[in-house]
Amino acid sequence: MMRSKVLSLVARAGSNRTMSTATKLTTVEVNDKTGIATLTMNRPPVNGLNLELLQDLKSSIDEVEGNKSRGLILTSSSSTIFSAGLDILEMYKPDKDRIRAFWTQLQDTWLALYGSSVPTAAAINGHSPAGGCLLATSCEYRVMVPNFTIGLNETQLGIVAPKWFMASFLSVLPQREAERALNQGRMFTTEEALKVGLIDETANSKEEAIEKCVAFIGTFAKVNPLARSLTKQQFRAADLQQLQNERKEDLDKFLFFVNQPAVQKGLGIYLEGLKKKAKKQ
Amino acid sequence: MMRSKVLSLVARAGSNRTMSTATKLTTVEVNDKTGIATLTMNRPPVNGLNLELLQDLKSSIDEVEGNKSRGLILTSSSSTIFSAGLDILEMYKPDKDRIRAFWTQLQDTWLALYGSSVPTAAAINGHSPAGGCLLATSCEYRVMVPNFTIGLNETQLGIVAPKWFMASFLSVLPQREAERALNQGRMFTTEEALKVGLIDETANSKEEAIEKCVAFIGTFAKVNPLARSLTKQQFRAADLQQLQNERKEDLDKFLFFVNQPAVQKGLGIYLEGLKKKAKKQ
Amino acid sequence: MMRSKVLSLVARAGSNRTMSTATKLTTVEVNDKTGIATLTMNRPPVNGLNLELLQDLKSSIDEVEGNKSRGLILTSSSSTIFSAGLDILEMYKPDKDRIRAFWTQLQDTWLALYGSSVPTAAAINGHSPAGGCLLATSCEYRVMVPNFTIGLNETQLGIVAPKWFMASFLSVLPQREAERALNQGRMFTTEEALKVGLIDETANSKEEAIEKCVAFIGTFAKVNPLARSLTKQQFRAADLQQLQNERKEDLDKFLFFVNQPAVQKGLGIYLEGLKKKAKKQ
Repeated sequence: MMRSKVLSLVARAGSNRTMSTATKLTTVEVNDKTGIATLTMNRPPVNGLNLELLQDLKSSIDEVEGNKSRGLILTSSSSTIFSAGLDILEMYKPDKDRIRAFWTQLQDTWLALYGSSVPTAAAINGHSPAGGCLLATSCEYRVMVPNFTIGLNETQLGIVAPKWFMASFLSVLPQREAERALNQGRMFTTEEALKVGLIDETANSKEEAIEKCVAFIGTFAKVNPLARSLTKQQFRAADLQQLQNERKEDLDKFLFFVNQPAVQKGLGIYLEGLKKKAKKQ
Repeated sequence: MMRSKVLSLVARAGSNRTMSTATKLTTVEVNDKTGIATLTMNRPPVNGLNLELLQDLKSSIDEVEGNKSRGLILTSSSSTIFSAGLDILEMYKPDKDRIRAFWTQLQDTWLALYGSSVPTAAAINGHSPAGGCLLATSCEYRVMVPNFTIGLNETQLGIVAPKWFMASFLSVLPQREAERALNQGRMFTTEEALKVGLIDETANSKEEAIEKCVAFIGTFAKVNPLARSLTKQQFRAADLQQLQNERKEDLDKFLFFVNQPAVQKGLGIYLEGLKKKAKKQ
Repeated sequence: MMRSKVLSLVARAGSNRTMSTATKLTTVEVNDKTGIATLTMNRPPVNGLNLELLQDLKSSIDEVEGNKSRGLILTSSSSTIFSAGLDILEMYKPDKDRIRAFWTQLQDTWLALYGSSVPTAAAINGHSPAGGCLLATSCEYRVMVPNFTIGLNETQLGIVAPKWFMASFLSVLPQREAERALNQGRMFTTEEALKVGLIDETANSKEEAIEKCVAFIGTFAKVNPLARSLTKQQFRAADLQQLQNERKEDLDKFLFFVNQPAVQKGLGIYLEGLKKKAKKQ
């Protein structure tokens, strides 16, 4: 898929739509010493997952796959938000072609991250609802800074997390915990997330979170990289295959749902709320 | 399926077969304040799941689905038994047509409860073996009064819990715990059930159990009901679909098994035991 | 399948290839009092799973199935190794026909053990890597002596545990723990294995381990054996069916992988290492 270079509407939570150039929204830095790549999402203010950020994420994951990195650490340039999830502006009064490209890109980006051949870890240095939680649970390890929240809160927003969001969630949580949290749209505090197993460790700062991710990736030092990646991909094959088999149905289901008047109305009210909240501040 | 209005044989544990009118065996009360429906099984003495109770349960679940209740709490009118499970008189020397209707109704009732669009919780105010445990684990939440037992004890009775009993059990317990308990036909005390996750909370009385179920259903207060029900049904889709796809095979398997001379003999001995036990008392 | 009676090359870890007659490599002893069979692997020095040991294991499992034993306890005649896993000499510079027979026998032996109708328990009285861990996790219960290790460490050896190894592992561990351990090729100490649930109990000696296995099998005393075995087999049906359906693909995948020059090279280096280690001692 061609990398979009055109101007695009970017949602800024708590503000109006503003024009912004679609410059690169992610950065990849490979540590010379460890050989580990840090992939930073950098779409202020909340790393809303719009088409362009998803494209950049996919390109960066591909880059890390290609540059022989020993691992990938996903983090955010924001000090309070890991990622706020799907950009609601992509779904509200959507353009027909763009929303298809958006969802297809989300599928591609997830397939690349969840199925990545390199060890992956998330340094969760801010809130991580919905699509943010999807990205975090698609990694193999999660380290989170305190006083933030994480969860698949789609039902709170009146939408339904697709099956593959559920698959990522279930790769981490027991079925009973996963179902209840999904139904409730529950956001877990860092401490609650640790207790239930949604994250693996806590860290007092982004730096410490990255250090702990480096240590996790270090546990693969003596492991044959090819055997490791084939093992991971075989373990995740059923989840990956299910989306591969149902890509079109999944897209159609999303389009049908998002175009329901009630859903559009809900998204409109939600965006109004964000605007008012912003004016008060 | 037509609601049976005819007289039927009702099994009373610890007594002889007695004639009883098939009056309504369940009641539904909707709390005006909370909007939550309490569905009470009322087939003395042990809520044995015969054709008529299963029909009434299904009708009551449908009623709750239809009346815009905010949730469903399943409980028992007995002070010692939640439900003793499948009525063995339905399986012992069965009438050909009736046993088919019985099993088909059990399938229908489970599909309705496990797939219910409203939040469901069980206030387990008594023993809950076999089919009683199936009903409890088909709900989303379980609160149980102490000094009772719960479990899928089919192997202790010489029968095999069907795949969908296992699916309900696995929606609650880890695979390792679920398999062992199924093979052993293990009955868990309230305390053991809490420890292993088979129930979520304990309560000192039926009233407190219902209160805690109300509190659980209250966690969905801010959740969009449509998104919630679609989320739940998608999460449970594979389990529901499996029975939908295999209804006939499942019925045939049950009929074949139950008609084995060894199984009939075992059920006969079990019923004799109940009669003797009753005479002693 | 015909029992091989021919001379065969036997791998002795830490030594050279030596010729050995393929006498019976397993023994089965049925305790008159308990009716429980103890199946002992006896292929010194490390119970390397070669074609003949796998054949003998399968024959012994069949024998236990046939002789009305109340249960099967799998253990080792060695005081330090339960089983070192697949015999690498079967995979290094393999004979075309023999390696096919070897892998096919491994499939058969697993299908027989994982799907066994009698209660199964492993008395793990020594290290249990890779194929050794497969055997242990194919049983229903595990008791392990301290100061040993257990795990699927295939990635450490540059190979990939097949899907059905993963299925056995997942029947015991939560998905999150299972995936991480598989990717890392992690070996758990007895204490770590207990904590994570990979084993069920520890015991201070082989005798105590067997006693605890006997106690576990005793929990089925009041359970109908036919109902129990049908329950277990139904619970494990999806895992068993998957290999049944994919036997040829599974064999082809293994043959393709093992014949890769890089894999052959890795196995050669590993065997050289064992020889050098042996000379030093």
